[in-house]
Amino acid sequence: MAVQTVASSTPGSTVDLGPATALSCRECGHRVPLGPVFACEECFGPLEIAYDFSAYDTETLRKRIEAGPANIWRYAPLLPVPADVADKPNLNPGWTKLVKADHLAAELGVTGGLYVKDDSGNPTHSFKDRVVAQALEAARAFGFTTLSCSSTGNLAGAVGAAAARAGLRSCVFIPHDLEQGKVVMAAIYGGDLVGIEGTYDDVNRFCSELIGDPAGEGWGFVNVNLRPYYAEGSKTLAYEICEQLGWRLPDQIVVPIASGSQLTKVDKGLRELIELGLVEDKPYKIFGAQAEGCSPVSTAFKAGHDVVRPQKPNTIAKSLAIGNPADGPYVLDIARRTGGAVEDVTDEQVVDAIKLLARTEGIFAETAGGVTVGVTRKLIENGLLDPTKTTVVLNTGDGLKTLDAVAGTGLTATIRPTLDSFREAGLA
Amino acid sequence: MAVQTVASSTPGSTVDLGPATALSCRECGHRVPLGPVFACEECFGPLEIAYDFSAYDTETLRKRIEAGPANIWRYAPLLPVPADVADKPNLNPGWTKLVKADHLAAELGVTGGLYVKDDSGNPTHSFKDRVVAQALEAARAFGFTTLSCSSTGNLAGAVGAAAARAGLRSCVFIPHDLEQGKVVMAAIYGGDLVGIEGTYDDVNRFCSELIGDPAGEGWGFVNVNLRPYYAEGSKTLAYEICEQLGWRLPDQIVVPIASGSQLTKVDKGLRELIELGLVEDKPYKIFGAQAEGCSPVSTAFKAGHDVVRPQKPNTIAKSLAIGNPADGPYVLDIARRTGGAVEDVTDEQVVDAIKLLARTEGIFAETAGGVTVGVTRKLIENGLLDPTKTTVVLNTGDGLKTLDAVAGTGLTATIRPTLDSFREAGLA
Repeated sequence: MAVQTVASSTPGSTVDLGPATALSCRECGHRVPLGPVFACEECFGPLEIAYDFSAYDTETLRKRIEAGPANIWRYAPLLPVPADVADKPNLNPGWTKLVKADHLAAELGVTGGLYVKDDSGNPTHSFKDRVVAQALEAARAFGFTTLSCSSTGNLAGAVGAAAARAGLRSCVFIPHDLEQGKVVMAAIYGGDLVGIEGTYDDVNRFCSELIGDPAGEGWGFVNVNLRPYYAEGSKTLAYEICEQLGWRLPDQIVVPIASGSQLTKVDKGLRELIELGLVEDKPYKIFGAQAEGCSPVSTAFKAGHDVVRPQKPNTIAKSLAIGNPADGPYVLDIARRTGGAVEDVTDEQVVDAIKLLARTEGIFAETAGGVTVGVTRKLIENGLLDPTKTTVVLNTGDGLKTLDAVAGTGLTATIRPTLDSFREAGLA
Repeated sequence: MAVQTVASSTPGSTVDLGPATALSCRECGHRVPLGPVFACEECFGPLEIAYDFSAYDTETLRKRIEAGPANIWRYAPLLPVPADVADKPNLNPGWTKLVKADHLAAELGVTGGLYVKDDSGNPTHSFKDRVVAQALEAARAFGFTTLSCSSTGNLAGAVGAAAARAGLRSCVFIPHDLEQGKVVMAAIYGGDLVGIEGTYDDVNRFCSELIGDPAGEGWGFVNVNLRPYYAEGSKTLAYEICEQLGWRLPDQIVVPIASGSQLTKVDKGLRELIELGLVEDKPYKIFGAQAEGCSPVSTAFKAGHDVVRPQKPNTIAKSLAIGNPADGPYVLDIARRTGGAVEDVTDEQVVDAIKLLARTEGIFAETAGGVTVGVTRKLIENGLLDPTKTTVVLNTGDGLKTLDAVAGTGLTATIRPTLDSFREAGLA
């Protein structure tokens, strides 16, 4: 069933993915039945999930969510998953902490309330568990037996772990020369881990070929042929933030940009909550954060362009290093429509921000978290982010996975095991 | 106030630590007021927290817990913390996942229900966040301004992070030649990190000296002068397991042994739940797990001894490598009283068990988790653990912190980015 055309991939009404009713083209609106496809047959635009939420009563839905499990499945009525999803073996990601970051707020001069949504609390310690969990349900619905992806890091582990829990085979493709630590993190779950002699682009091209070949039959590539389902997982960040704020919209939210998908889905999630009446309809601003060494969207935003010119990435924020972000133009739309902005910071500022967040709040973020915290600081300095408003900053990964970025951090002092030596070091 | 004797460290009735009423000697029962002391003035036995739970009505307490936050503070009525603890800045650890491990159960032949209590989900990814959170509240109650400890790993990060969030200074002592990765994990939170020229024993000796010296005034050492409070944090593992099982006791529980404190407190927590009527009073068995390269308690158990003979540790399970475990004799008592056992596994079996857990359940455990899973397998094989009974295995840490132990894990294959190369590798 691993085919790209609509005609031969329409399981039709037998697929139960809850409130999801169809795939709809984001460009031309053309609809096709739910299936493992990701591009519009009419205009090649990206396909998105269309839902039927019409039967929901606001207060009944709110109670149902609040009575749900402490993971993303509390929002099952708003996701492309079957109603009994929580009973199936999966990693149950989400419902991560929304940390009131008062010390960080004091350092940055934020007076309106500053929160860090800390997705390092997910099972494999990045937000990828949210999106992979959606792709897994789609894979089950379409009868796939192998879960796959191309990856250079977080996604490989998330797919390997999710497949292991679900009892599916996994086969993950990575550049053959990845650092040994990342290879171990991906290989430990026992699935196939294949090194490709080539760059990450070569890995991606190969995966697209494999999807169209009989050799790839029965394979669900979470970020390719299951991408419309996968991407919806990021909506849960928006849902959780609002529910954890007491069913309130934040005024401002700072989201990292890799492909840009996460930012567009956070916006989609917020709009859905407004439409469903679960939060008050009021303005919010979405800000995008990039590293200077891979800042195609930030560059386009500042230049006032609608088109994103690809860049060759060169930054320590590897999990954001997508030089040609597919959803870049949509990100520009959202930042402009909501009154937000897209900004970037240098690698040095990323490292400073990682240390700042750790020192003030005890949260050790991945480089991507350094990017969002660093950009937040910069946006306040240049007046684009209002420090008197409620602001949420996303940390999408864990510092343990990017130790190299802060390798210079070390001992305050080395002493002999005596009180005299201790006093001499001036630590008392 | 950082003194060791009772006379000069009795803040008396002004200290609000919730239901905690006094410190009581585990050996002779002698009571002293709550204070930063850890050894009995009469017999030098270890001091434990005494509580007054007499005012609690079972069903009211149960409802209060169930309505509490999704962290250890839902059990504040049973811990030495003030009632408003959840409103103070802290890492809010706990309420980690209890994973129904059906695939692992199938591999091990467990038919009575197998669960993994996965404490890698804590904020700094080990169970240490639970105990440090208790020590932090005691430190605040006693007016300490510096949080400290001796450590070779998990504890250093947990203390650094907790102090950062709380706005306290931290000063952590480690052997000066610790691996760079561990130094980074501890240093990132911005507290003082002091390398001691010497072994871990030298570090410990130095810390004890510092507590008795004016230079250590105002210092709370979480695992020394705050140890009675600190240790109670492990009770929350027992509370959570029972509540997550639907207020049921497990039949069998497998706990790792370092100092032995955790195992004794898990037992204490289970007994409290029985006494409070929150679970049915029925027998349960507690099993202790060690690595063969540091197995003083297991060796004593098998030899039928009451005394634990110290060993020089030599194992990859560094977080369990305490050769002279303070609570060893109590562990022997509990294992024998409940009908459990203490067992050990080789480093090779630890690595195999880490891989087994990752492959079957998508959980990447620290070496300590490999010890408990490996010991569970061995206990089933030698007939000491009943596979037809409900069994809970603790995973107390995260595999990302002990990557070296599984460094051999790697690529399944390396191929060129072509379908032919893929087919040749036999991966289709």
